[in-house]
Amino acid sequence: MIVGYQTYIELLDGLIDGKEVISSGMTREVERCSLAIEKALAGNYVAVVSSGDPGIYGMAGITLELLEKQGAGDRLEVEIVPGITSANAAASSLGAALMHDFTVISLSDLLTPWEVIEKRLEAAARADFVTVLYNPVSRKRTEQIKRAREIFLRYRPRSTPVGIVRNAKRSGEEVTRTDLEGFLDNHIDMFTVVLIGSSQTYHTEKFMITPRGYNV
Amino acid sequence: MIVGYQTYIELLDGLIDGKEVISSGMTREVERCSLAIEKALAGNYVAVVSSGDPGIYGMAGITLELLEKQGAGDRLEVEIVPGITSANAAASSLGAALMHDFTVISLSDLLTPWEVIEKRLEAAARADFVTVLYNPVSRKRTEQIKRAREIFLRYRPRSTPVGIVRNAKRSGEEVTRTDLEGFLDNHIDMFTVVLIGSSQTYHTEKFMITPRGYNV
Repeated sequence: MIVGYQTYIELLDGLIDGKEVISSGMTREVERCSLAIEKALAGNYVAVVSSGDPGIYGMAGITLELLEKQGAGDRLEVEIVPGITSANAAASSLGAALMHDFTVISLSDLLTPWEVIEKRLEAAARADFVTVLYNPVSRKRTEQIKRAREIFLRYRPRSTPVGIVRNAKRSGEEVTRTDLEGFLDNHIDMFTVVLIGSSQTYHTEKFMITPRGYNV
Repeated sequence: MIVGYQTYIELLDGLIDGKEVISSGMTREVERCSLAIEKALAGNYVAVVSSGDPGIYGMAGITLELLEKQGAGDRLEVEIVPGITSANAAASSLGAALMHDFTVISLSDLLTPWEVIEKRLEAAARADFVTVLYNPVSRKRTEQIKRAREIFLRYRPRSTPVGIVRNAKRSGEEVTRTDLEGFLDNHIDMFTVVLIGSSQTYHTEKFMITPRGYNV
């Protein structure tokens, strides 16, 4: 039995033939997970489906939290199967953008106070991490990415390489290599991740590279 | 044609039957990549093999850097195939440890000045990131992990959850859930990653969980 968000279920084309599928809309995560646990307690093998890596802003956390809250942890066996999250997928499409220390930060302040996010952006910029921004923009949230850019501009030059990847490793993938000065001129939405380079990151004609430090 | 470090080539058991294999020891990365480029320029299809994700402290960067340096970028088509890096693999074995903003930091000061690493540890601890430490200890490097612990203790309580995963998702995997106070009592080596929780991370009986913020 397969439980998941409709959009992601559709990506499973061909892999789940003959399986019972329960799908629902976005922001119904708690409901979906409760149902999955209920079905599992009733004796079914249940797979909760998440895009990317379920353990990175995905369904792993909520599933385990609910399991714990319902005291069902002892009665069910759970396996979290890791996957390729947008950071890794996007970095590979850009070249080798994450070859040195990096941070992953979600700009969504729906579940996290903006002050906490801002503090993390500041820390990432100051300590020269390559930084991957998840959920950079939504229909209702358009200011956070501008604020993030301002914070990075305090610590890094305008020419700092930035990579923008939409639909990373999915059909219709769009890869843009640009810089901190101009990256907001590009289309950025919820299917996009933004990678801001460290002081060591550079663009070649085809690739965005953060060197590891090897003497080449 | 397959090029890679001997230990990783051995993990490919069965996948590369009939292919020509060129393997070499560790710290011969530049040599291996040069050879791979040479073979590709001679007209072969060449796969450079890396463990985990080649784009995270792997072979992607050095390959693209060498390609650029040799001016061979225009003559070869290169694809970086992303993979599952230790951070993701270990987090899934621990439960859902990376469900919120995180940093990945290598403690190896072979190619990076220790001051830079320490600055990043400090920033990660202060801004309440979940933090994944790569290359925590080697035969010659045993002090860095102690220093990292001291830095985190300045900002987080001794009870902060820590997860230690050795051989993540490989045979002989070892998963330990402990805390900032006592985690150095465990065996830690180059096959190990150490995950230090944020202020929100907690252990249940079976899992290490960083909540996303959902109201469960």
